[in-house]
Amino acid sequence: MSTRSTTLQPTAAVVVIGNEILSGRTRDANLPYLATKLGEAGIRMVEARVVPDIQVRIVEAVNALRSSNTYVFTTGGIGPTHDDITARAIAAAFGVPFGRNAEAERRLRGYYDPEMINDARLSMADMPAGAELIDNPVSIAPGFRLENVHVLPGVPKILQAMVDLLIPALAGGAPISSSALTVFAAEGELASLLAEVQLKHPQVDIGSYPFFRQGRFGTTIVARAPDAALVQSAREALEARVLATGYEWMAFDAESAFPSHS
Amino acid sequence: MSTRSTTLQPTAAVVVIGNEILSGRTRDANLPYLATKLGEAGIRMVEARVVPDIQVRIVEAVNALRSSNTYVFTTGGIGPTHDDITARAIAAAFGVPFGRNAEAERRLRGYYDPEMINDARLSMADMPAGAELIDNPVSIAPGFRLENVHVLPGVPKILQAMVDLLIPALAGGAPISSSALTVFAAEGELASLLAEVQLKHPQVDIGSYPFFRQGRFGTTIVARAPDAALVQSAREALEARVLATGYEWMAFDAESAFPSHS
Repeated sequence: MSTRSTTLQPTAAVVVIGNEILSGRTRDANLPYLATKLGEAGIRMVEARVVPDIQVRIVEAVNALRSSNTYVFTTGGIGPTHDDITARAIAAAFGVPFGRNAEAERRLRGYYDPEMINDARLSMADMPAGAELIDNPVSIAPGFRLENVHVLPGVPKILQAMVDLLIPALAGGAPISSSALTVFAAEGELASLLAEVQLKHPQVDIGSYPFFRQGRFGTTIVARAPDAALVQSAREALEARVLATGYEWMAFDAESAFPSHS
Repeated sequence: MSTRSTTLQPTAAVVVIGNEILSGRTRDANLPYLATKLGEAGIRMVEARVVPDIQVRIVEAVNALRSSNTYVFTTGGIGPTHDDITARAIAAAFGVPFGRNAEAERRLRGYYDPEMINDARLSMADMPAGAELIDNPVSIAPGFRLENVHVLPGVPKILQAMVDLLIPALAGGAPISSSALTVFAAEGELASLLAEVQLKHPQVDIGSYPFFRQGRFGTTIVARAPDAALVQSAREALEARVLATGYEWMAFDAESAFPSHS
């Protein structure tokens, strides 16, 4: 659809590790957060996988994604219990030894009172050889990076704090610009004008998202690209076509040259 | 960890198709719903992937998953607009012709007033050859099944209605039993008793999930298996060990032989 240059935008894939997501017990909150933070850094998330807490499945997903993407992030499975197997799985994926990371152990011992230290907590310092630590300002137990794979916890508040430090420090790309326009008409009525504008703006992703809320239905149109001028050009074309339909429409952003409500 | 028999439990994988999930704009609501409905039918979700609206990525994911799982479900990309490419991608994945499905067209023409019929809406009747329709009681445009791949829309309210009809009609397995116990202690304090109970109950998945809410922290322990008696046995072992710790605990379900609050 769009022919976006890959040199503008590093790519990322995410592996969400956790039986509880696959069972429906927990709704993942980390993918949306990562998507947003990566987008702000101009890093394009191209795939996500949800896998169980099973070593062979983690290894398979990480190895499938790490050679074809700039960055991989994993979430979950680095706590102190028997079902926390991610660190060992990453060592297996890379074929490197797995053992106690001295700096990680130092941080944990500095954090816990001596009577709280036990084998389970210290196991959070067991990592692949060569791991670089990723700081955890909330609860100390570090994540780690091995080559382009960044291993993070699953607890959303902890992941978010770590990601807020980590992602801005990564080599990013041109941030995505986006522009949204809401039209109170069904997708089927707008499809042909959308297709025409898309054809004329091949470097911009134009997506359409139907909605029904508060008794009204309509379609939100979103134009996205790592180039604000191209997005603006597509936006103007969309507005001109939409105005010509006579449908009611509205917009929430500053790009519109028109009044913000039909 | 657990050695659950695969004959008890058909497996499912889900492919969530949508740029808007990867961009962070939309938070997927379909995976949790599918996970729950599949679990009720005794079908175990073993993987989910989120891919963009790009044909080669959809083909890659569907083909990777359909030979190693009993069922595959895709969500998204079967609407009337130019970015709805899933049906064509499924035809490509199976190497079959793609074209107008007569019954699907009949349903759409029966639903839309003549002046509402246009090429975009009729394109929702374009499907792989050999597709069996999946009924859509909300907005008529059907999903479809090709071999073990079930193609569904992305709009949550429509998917839910379709899934409520579809999944109970699939050949399922022994429904998962689960039992949850909440202990007001950190995971690190419970890890060793959990590991011991897990070792003694290899066919039950025992997971631990830390939480911090309303100023209290703790760990929820969940025991799951497609065998209620095994889950009950693991539950009793967990309760006995937790009682012995003296930590405050509570439970919400009927399996506990003990009072529901410490």
